[in-house]
Amino acid sequence: MNYYEKFRVKPGSKVHLDNIDASFKGEHENHRSALPEIQDYNRKIRDLQYLMYAEHKHSLLICLQGRDAAGKDGTINHVLSAMNPQGCTVTGFKQPTAEELDHDFLWRCHKAVPRRGNVAIFNRSHYEDVLVQRVHQMVPKEVWSKRYDHINNFEKLLTDNNTLILKFYLHIDAKEQLARFKKRIDDPTRHWKISESDYTEACYWDAYTGAFQDALEKCSTDYAPWFVIPSNHKWFRNLAISHIVAKAMESLDMAFPKPTENIDEIKKKYHSLDQREQKKGLISGEKKSPKKKK
Amino acid sequence: MNYYEKFRVKPGSKVHLDNIDASFKGEHENHRSALPEIQDYNRKIRDLQYLMYAEHKHSLLICLQGRDAAGKDGTINHVLSAMNPQGCTVTGFKQPTAEELDHDFLWRCHKAVPRRGNVAIFNRSHYEDVLVQRVHQMVPKEVWSKRYDHINNFEKLLTDNNTLILKFYLHIDAKEQLARFKKRIDDPTRHWKISESDYTEACYWDAYTGAFQDALEKCSTDYAPWFVIPSNHKWFRNLAISHIVAKAMESLDMAFPKPTENIDEIKKKYHSLDQREQKKGLISGEKKSPKKKK
Repeated sequence: MNYYEKFRVKPGSKVHLDNIDASFKGEHENHRSALPEIQDYNRKIRDLQYLMYAEHKHSLLICLQGRDAAGKDGTINHVLSAMNPQGCTVTGFKQPTAEELDHDFLWRCHKAVPRRGNVAIFNRSHYEDVLVQRVHQMVPKEVWSKRYDHINNFEKLLTDNNTLILKFYLHIDAKEQLARFKKRIDDPTRHWKISESDYTEACYWDAYTGAFQDALEKCSTDYAPWFVIPSNHKWFRNLAISHIVAKAMESLDMAFPKPTENIDEIKKKYHSLDQREQKKGLISGEKKSPKKKK
Repeated sequence: MNYYEKFRVKPGSKVHLDNIDASFKGEHENHRSALPEIQDYNRKIRDLQYLMYAEHKHSLLICLQGRDAAGKDGTINHVLSAMNPQGCTVTGFKQPTAEELDHDFLWRCHKAVPRRGNVAIFNRSHYEDVLVQRVHQMVPKEVWSKRYDHINNFEKLLTDNNTLILKFYLHIDAKEQLARFKKRIDDPTRHWKISESDYTEACYWDAYTGAFQDALEKCSTDYAPWFVIPSNHKWFRNLAISHIVAKAMESLDMAFPKPTENIDEIKKKYHSLDQREQKKGLISGEKKSPKKKK
C-alpha cells in the first residue's frame, strides 16, 4: 500500500480527525507480520542517509506533532534506530525561554534546521505556536492567525534550499490516550513521565482538534506535506513513517558524487606497492602477514 | 527637510541610481553647520533606545549596504556613538563559512536579529545573496531570483514581531569611490583596508548598479523600507541617517511600562527611613554625609 499518498493531507482539502480511524492497520495483523517490511524500509533509510551525506546537496527535516502520549518519543527512537546518529540531530521544543520569547517564533526553529547532507528531527516544532499558544490564548488571534503564512514561507525557504520536509501528525483517539495515561500510572518506571498538565490538557481535546485541523489544512503544501498517521498501534505508526521517509528520500534521486581523484591511477599505485611488499616478504622472509601466521 | 520621505524608495517605484545626486547636501553647507542638528537627532536616538529597552516590545534592525568605500564602517561608528552599546549588537556578514553555506541564505542572518528591546546593526546583510552572489554568478539565476520573495517574507516575519527594519543604501558615485581608494593608498595607516578585490570589484560597477537597483525596487516594502542615502559627504550621510532613525523610532509611539510596585508606598517607606537616619545623625553626631564634609 502507498502510505505516502494515503496519509498525505492534500493541499486545499479539509481534515476531519474524528473521521480518521486511529486504529488503522493496513495489510498486517500485528507487529510480527509487519516486522520484515519495517526492517526493509529502515535499511533503505540508512543507505539513503549515507547517500544524502555523501552527495551533500539535500537535507531532511522531520517534524513530529501529536497530542500527549501520541508517541513522539517512541517515533524518534524508531526513526533514529534506522539512522546513523552522527548525521542526525534531535531538537525538542518545550516552553520557550526568555531569550526565545524575545524573538519571532521561528527564530529558535531556524537555528536547528539540518545542514546540507544531514537530518534533523523536531520533537514538537514551530507548529506549537499555532497549537498550544492558540488553545490557551497565550497570544491574541491577531498574532497566531498570521503565523500560518509565516510557516509556509519559512518552509518554502528551506525546501528551495533542498531541505526535504516531512511532517507527521501522530493520530490517536481519546480512548487510546486515556489507556496510555493509565498505563503510566500503573507502571512505577513511567511515573516520571506523568504531569498534571497531561490531564488538564486532555480537557482541551476539542480545542486541540480544531487547532490541529487548521494547521494540517493551512500548512500541508506541495513542498512540505503533512501526514496524518494512525498511531493507536505503535508498530503500524512505525511502519507507515518508515515507509514514507524511505519513499520520500528515494524520490530525491540522489547520486554519489564523482570522485575528485583518478581512481584507476590510485589503483595502479596500490597494485605496484602491493607487489613490492609481496616481493619483499618472499625474499627476506621476515614479517609475515597475520593471515599467514594463523 | 523630511529626509525619511525624501530618500525612501516608494514600493513599486523604479530606481535609477545614476540619476541620484550622491553629493546632495540639503540645507547645510558643511559639517560645522549640520552638527547641532546631528547632535539633536543623536540625543533623541539615545533616549528612544532607552525607552525601547524599557518598554520591551519593539526592536530595531538597521541594515547597511553599499559599494566598497561607501562608508559602512563609518556609519556604524556614527550610529553607535548615539547608542548605548549594551543594547546594541553589530554583525558583519563576510564570505559565508562552510557551515553557513550548508544552510539557506537567511539562516545566519536570522540568528543575529535583535531581541526585543534591543538594536542590531548589520554590516552587509542578507542582501549580499542577491548582490555579490548575483554579480559573480556564484549561484544560478534560478536560485538568486527566488531570494527577493524570501527576503520580503523574512522581513515581514520580523516586523510582525515588532522589529523596526531600516535599510540604508550608502550612495556614492564612481568618482568619489576612486578618490577614497586613492586616499587609502596615500595613507599608510589605511593600507590594511586595501585589498585587490576593491579594484577588481570596481570593474563590476554597472553589474552592481543593476543588482542594487533590483534589490531596492523589489524589497522596499511598506513594512521594511529602503533608503538611498547620498553619501559622498560623510557628514550629510550621518545627518540623514540619524534623522531617519530618530524619526522612525519616534513613530513607534513607545511608552514606559507601568511600574509593578506601588511607588507611593515605597516613597513613604523611604521617607520614614530617611527621617530615622537623620534623627540618628542628629543625636549621635557620627558619620556625616560626604556632602556636608566638603
